[in-house]
Amino acid sequence: MNEKQMAGYEAAKYVKDGMLVGIGTGSTAYYLIEKLGQRVKEEGLNIKCVSTSDASTEQAKSLGIPLLDTNDAPELDICIDGVDEVDPQFNGIKGGGGALFREKIVARSAKYNIWVCHSAKLVEEIGDFGLPVEVLPFGYKHVVKKMEDAGFEPVLRMNKDGSIYETNNHNYILDTKYTNSKFGKDYAAMEAFLKGTLGVLETGFFLNCTDLIISAGADGITTIENPNK
Amino acid sequence: MNEKQMAGYEAAKYVKDGMLVGIGTGSTAYYLIEKLGQRVKEEGLNIKCVSTSDASTEQAKSLGIPLLDTNDAPELDICIDGVDEVDPQFNGIKGGGGALFREKIVARSAKYNIWVCHSAKLVEEIGDFGLPVEVLPFGYKHVVKKMEDAGFEPVLRMNKDGSIYETNNHNYILDTKYTNSKFGKDYAAMEAFLKGTLGVLETGFFLNCTDLIISAGADGITTIENPNK
Repeated sequence: MNEKQMAGYEAAKYVKDGMLVGIGTGSTAYYLIEKLGQRVKEEGLNIKCVSTSDASTEQAKSLGIPLLDTNDAPELDICIDGVDEVDPQFNGIKGGGGALFREKIVARSAKYNIWVCHSAKLVEEIGDFGLPVEVLPFGYKHVVKKMEDAGFEPVLRMNKDGSIYETNNHNYILDTKYTNSKFGKDYAAMEAFLKGTLGVLETGFFLNCTDLIISAGADGITTIENPNK
Repeated sequence: MNEKQMAGYEAAKYVKDGMLVGIGTGSTAYYLIEKLGQRVKEEGLNIKCVSTSDASTEQAKSLGIPLLDTNDAPELDICIDGVDEVDPQFNGIKGGGGALFREKIVARSAKYNIWVCHSAKLVEEIGDFGLPVEVLPFGYKHVVKKMEDAGFEPVLRMNKDGSIYETNNHNYILDTKYTNSKFGKDYAAMEAFLKGTLGVLETGFFLNCTDLIISAGADGITTIENPNK
């Protein structure tokens, strides 16, 4: 079993009978969903899930996991998702898979949040991964200009075939280096600036959002509780 | 000539040779575009336009008006658009035509903004028209709940055939009564609250945005300059 699989399978243990569950997107969430599918089939686990992307929806459907529209699930018991980078202050970066908007909606509607990841995602300082920022296609170059004026370095995400990558919401992603922005390391100020910029839908900053991190590495599984939640 | 036509034709006079022009959406902007088409054809007026909706794009194309993508027009000389309701403090409401996001992007990129309207749109106090709020389809009921908790009364915009109305950005519109919200008449606070709500893309508040209003009514054309711009 690889590390991502270990983390995903471990997180599946937190899901109890009768729960409404938010399911994330990405290579670690993939194993979570796989395990939940097994439990539904083998244990008769009775859950309903809200998915954060078309890809996770397809996977869950194929495994017979019952799904709900997020609009029909005002509050979830738990949300389990991956994370691309997270520091000891629980500042997280998400959106590598392009699902950051839906992931944020689902995370906010859950009473308890768990992030699952390879231990390599736990870093002393965030920044290397960059920040995915979801923008409307119409006028996105105005957003790029405003971001550059503030010291951000946004790059439009492309597909391998050279076309522009589009999110499930029909928007674009700017993968943004933010370590040289005028805000220094004040991530909350960066978030406020970006959210206040006309044309930005959402950013990949997930600041003090999760209750628990389950990471897996060469030395096994580690769980870290967030003391500030 | 009806009043909307009078206002639209009058505004077209402000467009000079060589200008980059933002063109709005709606029943008054329709006449502006019609007149600009005439001037391009008859006077050889040399302009390039950025359009705020698919409908205006189609109309402009059919009249031979040269168009630019907003991404290729960092700054416009002038933007002329309609307005749904505006008070003496130049607080405007837009979005009746569903194009509020694109209209805001284009208005912000213009050095000079003109609103054209029937004189009935000039009101002592805004509120009757309601506030169009553009929201992402995914999770929009969470937004509805948050708005209702703050005293707003949002109603999902529908098409005549009973399907949900979608904007050119593939989003929904909540037509929102705001006169009983907890923010009283503090429109800037309403705007900040709504913009800070996850899932809201943009609102129809256009506060102190325009430089000039050209209205037409039974007693002819009136122009009102904004002293605070």
